[in-house]
Amino acid sequence: MSLTFILGGARSGKSRHAEELIERLSPPWTYIATAQAYDDEMVERIALHRSRRPAPWQTLEAPHDLAAAIANLPSRQPVLVDCLTLWLTNRMLADADLAKEGDALLAALSAHDGEVFVVSNEVGLGIVPDNALARRFRDAQGRLNQKVAAEAQRVVFMVAGLTMPVKG
Amino acid sequence: MSLTFILGGARSGKSRHAEELIERLSPPWTYIATAQAYDDEMVERIALHRSRRPAPWQTLEAPHDLAAAIANLPSRQPVLVDCLTLWLTNRMLADADLAKEGDALLAALSAHDGEVFVVSNEVGLGIVPDNALARRFRDAQGRLNQKVAAEAQRVVFMVAGLTMPVKG
Amino acid sequence: MSLTFILGGARSGKSRHAEELIERLSPPWTYIATAQAYDDEMVERIALHRSRRPAPWQTLEAPHDLAAAIANLPSRQPVLVDCLTLWLTNRMLADADLAKEGDALLAALSAHDGEVFVVSNEVGLGIVPDNALARRFRDAQGRLNQKVAAEAQRVVFMVAGLTMPVKG
Repeated sequence: MSLTFILGGARSGKSRHAEELIERLSPPWTYIATAQAYDDEMVERIALHRSRRPAPWQTLEAPHDLAAAIANLPSRQPVLVDCLTLWLTNRMLADADLAKEGDALLAALSAHDGEVFVVSNEVGLGIVPDNALARRFRDAQGRLNQKVAAEAQRVVFMVAGLTMPVKG
Repeated sequence: MSLTFILGGARSGKSRHAEELIERLSPPWTYIATAQAYDDEMVERIALHRSRRPAPWQTLEAPHDLAAAIANLPSRQPVLVDCLTLWLTNRMLADADLAKEGDALLAALSAHDGEVFVVSNEVGLGIVPDNALARRFRDAQGRLNQKVAAEAQRVVFMVAGLTMPVKG
Repeated sequence: MSLTFILGGARSGKSRHAEELIERLSPPWTYIATAQAYDDEMVERIALHRSRRPAPWQTLEAPHDLAAAIANLPSRQPVLVDCLTLWLTNRMLADADLAKEGDALLAALSAHDGEVFVVSNEVGLGIVPDNALARRFRDAQGRLNQKVAAEAQRVVFMVAGLTMPVKG
């Protein structure tokens, strides 16, 4: 595995940057979407993301079993996971053991022999949320981001569509 | 146009840094305030900001028609726009077409033949807001920040009153 | 005083990084905890933090009178203050004069003749909070962070457990 971790806020250009990075490699590329269309707003967001990815992109949806989707990738195929924040949301709402699933995800990422690009949100830089679920999510996201960043060869922090190097 | 974009969180020293940068240039300098005094808290904030700017500052208020204010600047006059976040808030509450107005703003900035310093907030690094309006604002702010950053010659990210270079 | 300021979001690895830095120095080290156990969630967090710090750590609790705790440290003893955000929360809830107390804290930090490591949260990078108390806290935290960063010899911004240099 060679892992690039693209971290940033909402609408900071994370997905676009990840797509630009992977498109420098030989196609085909796999796009693993973790979004689940709960409501119209989300349906619209997914459609917007999809419209940016014509062939030779191959799109998989893995709102829940992300580790299995990664484990089943063709050998050496470059993959973009977009994004950990939606996946973690889905797994928290499904009442999963987030620490354990984070470890399984890391193991699957490490086992893939192609280039991996992982997108995630930094969500801990605002005021402490009022409700306990949001606080729990924020903690889980921070811990997962730390795990992925520790394994990554390259980490960038996105601000206003631009990259700030963090590692590698 | 030569554009410097100063991005950061609340109370990160953005305005003060922008003022320090522009005061290195020959006066007079124009300060375009976008704040609108909705309540006492805001009135207090505006007064605080004003008290830091004696002559040779020339202050304009442009809570809504920011592009026109920029278009009407004297040739070569250095200008500080403080800030895009309050302007975008005013325009969203006025139900404006934010994408279109963002493009018009960028065009006005590009057409000015003096040094431009633009202050804006990064607002996307917390937990997803509960209400849809806040989510819509966060998206609009992120998109606008990306547009400005793409055109800027220099972008800095402020943390605790200090600058982190992002571009230029 | 030689001051290192470790700033970042929730679960960004601030405390762990600060502990790694201080443990490079000769023991013993003083850990000043500012947390106050309001509820079970907080009790759990404090226990988790404590479990990471065996002897030769000496732990002091200073949820309120942080300046006095620093003033009473043995000469030349390295100290970790974890963290300013909880201390500021405690002082705001106690209706203290936050600007004045911030200055007193800075004076105490400056007077200590050993290495000082201070941890704090950046909380201003999300959407404007709905309630006035949270907005006031966010402003006070930003101002305090600016004061500490201005005095510090080194400032780092933590993202996903990794450090981004800001100063020094």
